[in-house]
Amino acid sequence: MFFEKKKIKASKLFPDLKIKKDFFVTDIKPLYIAKKNELSFFDSVKYKVDASTTKSEICITTSKLQEFLPKNTFKVIVKNVLFELAKTISKVYPNAHIDYPDESLKTPKKSKFKNVKFGNNVLVGKNVKIGSNSIIGSNTIIEHEVEIGKNCVIGHGNIIKNSLIGNNVVIQDNTKIGQKGFGFIPLKDKNLKFPHIGRVLINDNVEIASGCTIDRGSVDDTVIGKNTYLDNQVHIAHNVKIGDNCMIAGQVGFAGSSTIGNNVSIGGQAGISGHLNIGNNIKIGGGSGVVKDIEDNEIVMGYPAEKLRYFLKKNKSNE
Amino acid sequence: MFFEKKKIKASKLFPDLKIKKDFFVTDIKPLYIAKKNELSFFDSVKYKVDASTTKSEICITTSKLQEFLPKNTFKVIVKNVLFELAKTISKVYPNAHIDYPDESLKTPKKSKFKNVKFGNNVLVGKNVKIGSNSIIGSNTIIEHEVEIGKNCVIGHGNIIKNSLIGNNVVIQDNTKIGQKGFGFIPLKDKNLKFPHIGRVLINDNVEIASGCTIDRGSVDDTVIGKNTYLDNQVHIAHNVKIGDNCMIAGQVGFAGSSTIGNNVSIGGQAGISGHLNIGNNIKIGGGSGVVKDIEDNEIVMGYPAEKLRYFLKKNKSNE
Amino acid sequence: MFFEKKKIKASKLFPDLKIKKDFFVTDIKPLYIAKKNELSFFDSVKYKVDASTTKSEICITTSKLQEFLPKNTFKVIVKNVLFELAKTISKVYPNAHIDYPDESLKTPKKSKFKNVKFGNNVLVGKNVKIGSNSIIGSNTIIEHEVEIGKNCVIGHGNIIKNSLIGNNVVIQDNTKIGQKGFGFIPLKDKNLKFPHIGRVLINDNVEIASGCTIDRGSVDDTVIGKNTYLDNQVHIAHNVKIGDNCMIAGQVGFAGSSTIGNNVSIGGQAGISGHLNIGNNIKIGGGSGVVKDIEDNEIVMGYPAEKLRYFLKKNKSNE
Repeated sequence: MFFEKKKIKASKLFPDLKIKKDFFVTDIKPLYIAKKNELSFFDSVKYKVDASTTKSEICITTSKLQEFLPKNTFKVIVKNVLFELAKTISKVYPNAHIDYPDESLKTPKKSKFKNVKFGNNVLVGKNVKIGSNSIIGSNTIIEHEVEIGKNCVIGHGNIIKNSLIGNNVVIQDNTKIGQKGFGFIPLKDKNLKFPHIGRVLINDNVEIASGCTIDRGSVDDTVIGKNTYLDNQVHIAHNVKIGDNCMIAGQVGFAGSSTIGNNVSIGGQAGISGHLNIGNNIKIGGGSGVVKDIEDNEIVMGYPAEKLRYFLKKNKSNE
Repeated sequence: MFFEKKKIKASKLFPDLKIKKDFFVTDIKPLYIAKKNELSFFDSVKYKVDASTTKSEICITTSKLQEFLPKNTFKVIVKNVLFELAKTISKVYPNAHIDYPDESLKTPKKSKFKNVKFGNNVLVGKNVKIGSNSIIGSNTIIEHEVEIGKNCVIGHGNIIKNSLIGNNVVIQDNTKIGQKGFGFIPLKDKNLKFPHIGRVLINDNVEIASGCTIDRGSVDDTVIGKNTYLDNQVHIAHNVKIGDNCMIAGQVGFAGSSTIGNNVSIGGQAGISGHLNIGNNIKIGGGSGVVKDIEDNEIVMGYPAEKLRYFLKKNKSNE
Repeated sequence: MFFEKKKIKASKLFPDLKIKKDFFVTDIKPLYIAKKNELSFFDSVKYKVDASTTKSEICITTSKLQEFLPKNTFKVIVKNVLFELAKTISKVYPNAHIDYPDESLKTPKKSKFKNVKFGNNVLVGKNVKIGSNSIIGSNTIIEHEVEIGKNCVIGHGNIIKNSLIGNNVVIQDNTKIGQKGFGFIPLKDKNLKFPHIGRVLINDNVEIASGCTIDRGSVDDTVIGKNTYLDNQVHIAHNVKIGDNCMIAGQVGFAGSSTIGNNVSIGGQAGISGHLNIGNNIKIGGGSGVVKDIEDNEIVMGYPAEKLRYFLKKNKSNE
């Protein structure tokens, strides 16, 4: 929907694979949501449950991991799953590895956006949808196909692309949503840029303050749950999923692919490492560095973050 | 001045209160500056001195705290002071809980701004005042009623609202000043947004670098003292008061309602928790997390920050 | 090139100096690159090797440090080198201490930029050069004399000044490059702003994400080596030099004048203090605070950062 997609047959994507009944690879998705003809990938034993239950019938993986995949899934065995995946996505989605600025941006026509108020110099791409009673501040850019719900207040100077935004969402000023995440295969002289074909999904009643950056997903989506509030200068990397009713204070950063539950509050400048599972009803103290999973109902603090009682014990004042 | 204000009688705001001689609540202010007919609030014993000397004759508080207030102050006794306060402010100031983009923004008329230079695509709201010899860079937005002094250099892409700015102030590029702070009453499904009726006051000779965010006060103001310099990507939350001649390095963050004295220097990426008193002539090391008050003339470092000699003792190299 | 420069004789810059054969001070440069008639400065024994081999024949220094300088270098002996330097630069470069917005900014003429695509509302200063097949997104500002190479993709809302950018460079949205750094001589009531006459040099194949700030050098340049990638909200202070093939994750901050080698990867929210030498092939963990030099091939983590094995030993879980 947001990116140009080529229709390519499995036999053409992977010429070395012996496929009896060839088929078009209809999309590329993570294991847990891939459908039959959608290509998936499996690169860490951490995702073995998803692997064993995937519906995908064609999956890039390693010789070691292949045993976890269903019998009727074609295994594309490689050494470096992400490298092969990046190359394959680039074939199917040739324009998702660089954020080429949307060339369809134009001043919005009032007739196309009923009951929407626009400030000055707003630019809107083709097929953008904005719900009634929403307001878009000056100098804001909304790229093609983005959808914004009803009763939203989007401030000045925001840049939004590759995103679906719910109702009653407030975004203050100068926030960037939907840009490509920080993903690439390091190569000398010229890294291989990892194409990002995911989206940013922002649910109802979310509030996002100023100067934030929310990257779109690489293969999966980046998601912000309903009624979650983000303070200024928060950074959310690709594929992060934040639950409902969370409070994220200023300058917090999330590395890629972590999942945060519901009712989680995170103090200012805390950092959450990548690929973690943070449960529900959790409080993370300001300035903490979270490097491992957290179970429901915990309070943690510190760098590296640990249960509050341990942190307090260690940091009894010397004075 | 920045927000639409309704004239409402005390009896109408608080129908359960038995008021013999009714009066108009003229404004809503913190204890220490509230005048006779201005509503105040008192929610923490930390402010008991302000409570006992307040001139406000109508104050939201709890049954426990009411004893600290003057005899002739009407006490509006509630369980949750901030919840009641938020609801009451919303009645008096119906538009301060969301930053609705200023609809009066226009290209400035040269005739109205004598001796002011404007870049391209500058937008200025109604009743904005800018002193002579000031320069406003391109794509900068200055919302209604903002006042900027003489000899100021405001760079490109800044967004300024609800603020009063002194003389000889330099603001580089893409800084956001005066937006609503991160305040709300957490409620399931739909938080109650705390209206922000305070301002940002920036004194003479201040320099603010690029990409900063300075939130306006909730009930009080956010203040930056004269000749204080801020580096890039600094975040200042609502109600923070920074003194004169301070040096705040890059990516420092201040949580809400802390007070910083004069001649304070803060190293890069340090964080200052909320509701703290930081004295004068203090040095705070880079990356520190300050979680308690600091007395004058101290040097602190660490997370949590402690006196430098303790930090150094603890962190003697192992190598 | 980027700043107006006055031709002033050595005798006029330093009237107290007894110069037999007067000459024009042609520029002001750091010791290691200054040519014969270029003024230099030497304020820390850390740079004694550079001092002893400098080609500069006129140098501001202290009476203590003068012995390290070559015999035929005129020594301008002062108490506060940086104070004298700031005053001297201001005489030679009268407009480098404040970022006056470029008054030559205009909508680019298609005829002047062949094979360059521009979005809406782009502003370009005089003598800007952009290579073929480059794309500039909407609302981006490129100030006078900036050079951008071929095949670059510069997104929306970027602000670029005083910079030379190579080929195949990608800059996402809302990044600020080339502004004055955080340098001043603290003075009561009105600090002396340190003029910044350096540039930002960005080499081929670099990728810079959204919301970053990269300050130009003060006397030296700020440099980003080829094929180095920066994630969102990274802050790079003046004079920082980053090598080739580095990976800098989100919200990392560099204080001024540090040098980073090649193949260095830095985790999210880490901070690098000023004036450090960070070698090659180094991994710095997320959230680390680096306060001393690091030798080649190390892995460090922590605040203050230390070798990984020490960090792990200290932070064995209590749980």
